[in-house]
Amino acid sequence: MIIMYKIIQDPVNGPIKIEGIFNEIVDSKYFQRLRYIKQLGLCNTVFPGANHTRFEHSLGSMFLAKELMEALGIESNIPVLAALLHDIGHMPFSHGIEEEFHSLYGVVHEDITEKIITGSAQYDDSDIPDILKKYGYDPKDIADVATGTSKNYPLFSEMVSGPIDVDEIDYLRRDALFCGVTMGQIDYKRLFNTVMVDDNKLVGVEKSIPTIESIIITRILMFNTVYFHKTCRIAQKMLGYAYIDMEDRSREDIKLNDFEFMEKIRVGNSSYMLKRIMNRELFKVSYRASYTKEKVECVKEALKTFNPHDYILDIVPPLYFSGKGRIKNYATVYFGGRKQDITDVSSMAMALSGEMENRQIIVSCTENIYIKVRSILNEFNLENRNG
Amino acid sequence: MIIMYKIIQDPVNGPIKIEGIFNEIVDSKYFQRLRYIKQLGLCNTVFPGANHTRFEHSLGSMFLAKELMEALGIESNIPVLAALLHDIGHMPFSHGIEEEFHSLYGVVHEDITEKIITGSAQYDDSDIPDILKKYGYDPKDIADVATGTSKNYPLFSEMVSGPIDVDEIDYLRRDALFCGVTMGQIDYKRLFNTVMVDDNKLVGVEKSIPTIESIIITRILMFNTVYFHKTCRIAQKMLGYAYIDMEDRSREDIKLNDFEFMEKIRVGNSSYMLKRIMNRELFKVSYRASYTKEKVECVKEALKTFNPHDYILDIVPPLYFSGKGRIKNYATVYFGGRKQDITDVSSMAMALSGEMENRQIIVSCTENIYIKVRSILNEFNLENRNG
Amino acid sequence: MIIMYKIIQDPVNGPIKIEGIFNEIVDSKYFQRLRYIKQLGLCNTVFPGANHTRFEHSLGSMFLAKELMEALGIESNIPVLAALLHDIGHMPFSHGIEEEFHSLYGVVHEDITEKIITGSAQYDDSDIPDILKKYGYDPKDIADVATGTSKNYPLFSEMVSGPIDVDEIDYLRRDALFCGVTMGQIDYKRLFNTVMVDDNKLVGVEKSIPTIESIIITRILMFNTVYFHKTCRIAQKMLGYAYIDMEDRSREDIKLNDFEFMEKIRVGNSSYMLKRIMNRELFKVSYRASYTKEKVECVKEALKTFNPHDYILDIVPPLYFSGKGRIKNYATVYFGGRKQDITDVSSMAMALSGEMENRQIIVSCTENIYIKVRSILNEFNLENRNG
Amino acid sequence: MIIMYKIIQDPVNGPIKIEGIFNEIVDSKYFQRLRYIKQLGLCNTVFPGANHTRFEHSLGSMFLAKELMEALGIESNIPVLAALLHDIGHMPFSHGIEEEFHSLYGVVHEDITEKIITGSAQYDDSDIPDILKKYGYDPKDIADVATGTSKNYPLFSEMVSGPIDVDEIDYLRRDALFCGVTMGQIDYKRLFNTVMVDDNKLVGVEKSIPTIESIIITRILMFNTVYFHKTCRIAQKMLGYAYIDMEDRSREDIKLNDFEFMEKIRVGNSSYMLKRIMNRELFKVSYRASYTKEKVECVKEALKTFNPHDYILDIVPPLYFSGKGRIKNYATVYFGGRKQDITDVSSMAMALSGEMENRQIIVSCTENIYIKVRSILNEFNLENRNG
Repeated sequence: MIIMYKIIQDPVNGPIKIEGIFNEIVDSKYFQRLRYIKQLGLCNTVFPGANHTRFEHSLGSMFLAKELMEALGIESNIPVLAALLHDIGHMPFSHGIEEEFHSLYGVVHEDITEKIITGSAQYDDSDIPDILKKYGYDPKDIADVATGTSKNYPLFSEMVSGPIDVDEIDYLRRDALFCGVTMGQIDYKRLFNTVMVDDNKLVGVEKSIPTIESIIITRILMFNTVYFHKTCRIAQKMLGYAYIDMEDRSREDIKLNDFEFMEKIRVGNSSYMLKRIMNRELFKVSYRASYTKEKVECVKEALKTFNPHDYILDIVPPLYFSGKGRIKNYATVYFGGRKQDITDVSSMAMALSGEMENRQIIVSCTENIYIKVRSILNEFNLENRNG
Repeated sequence: MIIMYKIIQDPVNGPIKIEGIFNEIVDSKYFQRLRYIKQLGLCNTVFPGANHTRFEHSLGSMFLAKELMEALGIESNIPVLAALLHDIGHMPFSHGIEEEFHSLYGVVHEDITEKIITGSAQYDDSDIPDILKKYGYDPKDIADVATGTSKNYPLFSEMVSGPIDVDEIDYLRRDALFCGVTMGQIDYKRLFNTVMVDDNKLVGVEKSIPTIESIIITRILMFNTVYFHKTCRIAQKMLGYAYIDMEDRSREDIKLNDFEFMEKIRVGNSSYMLKRIMNRELFKVSYRASYTKEKVECVKEALKTFNPHDYILDIVPPLYFSGKGRIKNYATVYFGGRKQDITDVSSMAMALSGEMENRQIIVSCTENIYIKVRSILNEFNLENRNG
Repeated sequence: MIIMYKIIQDPVNGPIKIEGIFNEIVDSKYFQRLRYIKQLGLCNTVFPGANHTRFEHSLGSMFLAKELMEALGIESNIPVLAALLHDIGHMPFSHGIEEEFHSLYGVVHEDITEKIITGSAQYDDSDIPDILKKYGYDPKDIADVATGTSKNYPLFSEMVSGPIDVDEIDYLRRDALFCGVTMGQIDYKRLFNTVMVDDNKLVGVEKSIPTIESIIITRILMFNTVYFHKTCRIAQKMLGYAYIDMEDRSREDIKLNDFEFMEKIRVGNSSYMLKRIMNRELFKVSYRASYTKEKVECVKEALKTFNPHDYILDIVPPLYFSGKGRIKNYATVYFGGRKQDITDVSSMAMALSGEMENRQIIVSCTENIYIKVRSILNEFNLENRNG
Repeated sequence: MIIMYKIIQDPVNGPIKIEGIFNEIVDSKYFQRLRYIKQLGLCNTVFPGANHTRFEHSLGSMFLAKELMEALGIESNIPVLAALLHDIGHMPFSHGIEEEFHSLYGVVHEDITEKIITGSAQYDDSDIPDILKKYGYDPKDIADVATGTSKNYPLFSEMVSGPIDVDEIDYLRRDALFCGVTMGQIDYKRLFNTVMVDDNKLVGVEKSIPTIESIIITRILMFNTVYFHKTCRIAQKMLGYAYIDMEDRSREDIKLNDFEFMEKIRVGNSSYMLKRIMNRELFKVSYRASYTKEKVECVKEALKTFNPHDYILDIVPPLYFSGKGRIKNYATVYFGGRKQDITDVSSMAMALSGEMENRQIIVSCTENIYIKVRSILNEFNLENRNG
């Protein structure tokens, strides 16, 4: 009676059974590193429960990929492996300072995911390609599906990154649970039970519509409430400033986990900012106004005399979050005898895909310059002072 | 150690403590009758868990009213009593055949609620006015608050029936739970913790916005998914037909509970239809098309040769469910230093208050005429045959 | 794109997909009747949410049987069909007055289940045997598995009725949810993921132990809190008295559903008792004492001058609920290299299988004789008067 | 409209409102440190969701203390402040290596809690005493209540640390949720609604019994399943070994948070062990047998030739976890007209308070000595080899 599997209890998806190749990947060094990469960067400064990591999310995505394949009756481990590995390349604090890493080193996490899975370039110490090969998988195939760019397996690719994908169905529910916000209820089982494959794409039916709508809504609510929370953004921007101020920055930093990164950034020039973040002495909001392009220019102009790392000028929600970019979900549904876009059959999806932002300009700064900033900015703009 | 209270376990709100006047009202004959009035009429033909009753919903509304009053720091039992009693006048099967009762007898359940609370007219056997008077309450005051029409207590009135009301916060969550649909998550505690009273109205603040949005969304989703489910509507319309066919109809029927009503309608002319409903042999959908006013006229014309109780012509969602009628929520929120309508500060509320229906015409009928109806209607309309 | 399945949303198990033979059975007359048989008889007099029916529980059991079979990797619909049909023979109000039916007609619901599935004797109008035969199943086989007595399929039989069975895993969770009691959390997926088949039996492993423990505990808590709630028992015993008082009793009554039964019992001799139940004017507890055999005899003697339908003498929990009968769970587990009884490897199961009842004698009666009964009984027993 | 409160969303308790003194304490340096002290030490090596911290648990305990006070109708912030501060003295990794800290420096976390609240000795940089004094509270009073040792406020003291305490009601539910184990359902609202104060103690009534039982059961299940999980214990023992191996150990280490501690221990002698923990290369179980005192002596003898930090000899559950120490709950309940111990009125509590352990001896070790240890230990003990 030797049991050759593990069961990991997941607060979001229940027990997750792991065996064989999956077990080996989970035990690998790069995957274990995900235990120390927080899923939501510094969002735990606002949502103290948000200490969950890319490790759990990766397991959850794998679980959902498996469930979806079973529901579709397709046998292949490829999308399941890809779901497990799709976030293996995340940098310290996930998206928290990805922007800074990107502008400094020209990489996004998907690039690194690809490298770790294939063991290329700076990641030739990765044990993952060998595990994959041992079980007969081509690392490049898995990497392409994991990054949602596969030509060989377009359906599997879409399952991991598409209009209806296991990545999102996991992270929306997971982030909602750990942030303690009452949303994120997605009846994925109903969706998986009804969705079909057509021309290498996942296509819903009438019975799928309510679940697809709930994904769209949950996405918008989670972005507005959590991912774009003004204070989360301030904390992360401050971390970005700290990193830019750090003396011995190097491209190798993206390989660190959260703790190692903290350890490195806690000394020298960047230490002051770090201490502030740790003690939650965050920049204070000194100005809020409804967004116009012109106003942003005025604010920029008005602030240019200050040290650029003493204040943050933010637009929330960011400009890219609108229209199709907001709902993302160009899912297809069989309805009335033909394939239609979700926005054509769901009035809710349609309404939410239009222009609809209440964007704000938010300026936050150190307490040293708080009064000054406040008075300068409110000089040319008296409305909306307190927000 | 004599315990003078009851604790009722509610699947939606947890333990509900009941004592004094509340206990007496719950024990009264008219309130006990609510145990036998299903909350969602015949929706259990589609959602088999939906066997919950107005009894539980009334207790839940009372509980929420008490919580809201505590959060606001106002001491008064008036809105709590009104919430407990707001649905006491519901007719058999709640809204299931309220339309038929209304067209036959000119009453809606709010009229009867008022009568039972005040003990007037046909309801002088109600023991509720005496209980209220015994504890120093004016039955008319309570009745007005319960029906959302109070001039004396406009704030309390709005709590029971207004843009943010305990009735709705209970029924949305309750109906979602019992129907087994994954929505209806409303963080009412956050709302109650943030809402304020201003000029006799409940007013939210910025922190209330996500909860108000979730109420609006849940309402739309629940209406689309449950309350306007085409099959629920068919079952209830069939019950309406049965009632109209019943020989010894009388105004007194509105006093019956579901069982007594079933018992009466199960004999004579109406028995055939009833048996069909019980065995779930419902009318079959024979035609579906996207709604236009003209098409409705054509369909009416085409069907007029058939026995009117052999088919149902329905428009789903009904015409009244649109714009402000859909979101209902003209809630007010302090934002940017002044009171604003929720649609001005929430882009989601704004988007959902526009015109956006995908309305359908749905014709269902008995199997006898199914093929005939299908061929006639599809003659002049080939698109959208199967839906 | 013709969809040939239904998806039923279940508050307990989520979406349940139904097609083919399962669809036909669900649509059959005898199965639809279960919509009108409350799962917990009159327990809704205490737990107002407990309006759920055998219909939903049967669907849930079917769902779990399917999940278990998939987890075990065995392909057969037999236990799935048996789970769906295992409660088809329930009499009005389920276990509520099963005792009275049994003493009058010598049947328990399992006998009727067998008859309806096979279409024998008084149940030759059952359409279920034909549906089963049409799909190649022997009705007798299914009936035996459904009643947990199959010689041909001992494993399947045990899945439906055994130490680890889908019936119980569904009803414990379902009853807890609808009663609003905070228990009944059973991680059945973990159990299904770990359990194995050995010698035609389900056998757990070390990883299964926590779930098996949680089943045992939930069972005890649910029995103590809900199934043996003193007021539920009073209400049901009163219904039993009413039935015994009914003039035109007949063996055919067991075929009725709850509504038809209520309709019949609401007239004549039994009407008075029924009205009391409907208005929740239940017998009042007039005596409570810790149980001894001798005390029961004394109480019986003392009460024999009263009309036997004016009072109820109850022992709670009933005598059969103790030791192995209480934990029921003689589940087997591989541990330390060999099969062992759960009570040998779980100290909790062991502790709960011993003698441990705090049994009480509870006498309730009509208000007419309340003071008299109270004074007589408390004469010879001064301790524990109020309980 | 200036809002002077914060609302923190807690996955366990919902929205938590914080204002005034509570806000100041939460913002203080020592309290913010709790954000970086994991609630369950290294249990996240087994339960990957268990990344929650003492910060959230402290907020949750505060919330429950407030709810309890409201339910009792007592007005005082003392127990609420004490609940917020009761864990302020936790050392890195909470209980994870508390044993090692204790044996090296003679302190337990309660000592430090007392010092931080009063600002004494090594903790004179604590800003908490000043905040307390500013609002009129005596830091010593709060410290005594927080550590459950108050003579002045015995009732409040018991609320924080007693048979029914807010600390435990929070941590059982929280740990269960984050570990993803399906247990930990405690209907605390029912308990708070029924519990009374008698002679400076919390006393339940009959209606409280099911909730008290569920606390006892949840405690046992959580200890067996999570807190005493053999692998969690191995990971933490390895961390303890690493700490003992660390060169520059000092009493000041207990002031570090998890990250700072990791940073320090990751270099030098202790680095090897730390790397193993980070990569989850934990000691492997080489021997399991049912516990007897004699066997432990034999095992000790047999292992004494090995390097003591190459293996772990553990007894699970530990010897102190038995009888009253296991159920802890000597709660008092009014029943049958008098105060009784919960074990006298609940057969379940009674059963679980007896001797009932299935204790095991578990030896784990490095892979270097694995085969040797395994063969030596199994020589004198052939039963239970694999466990």
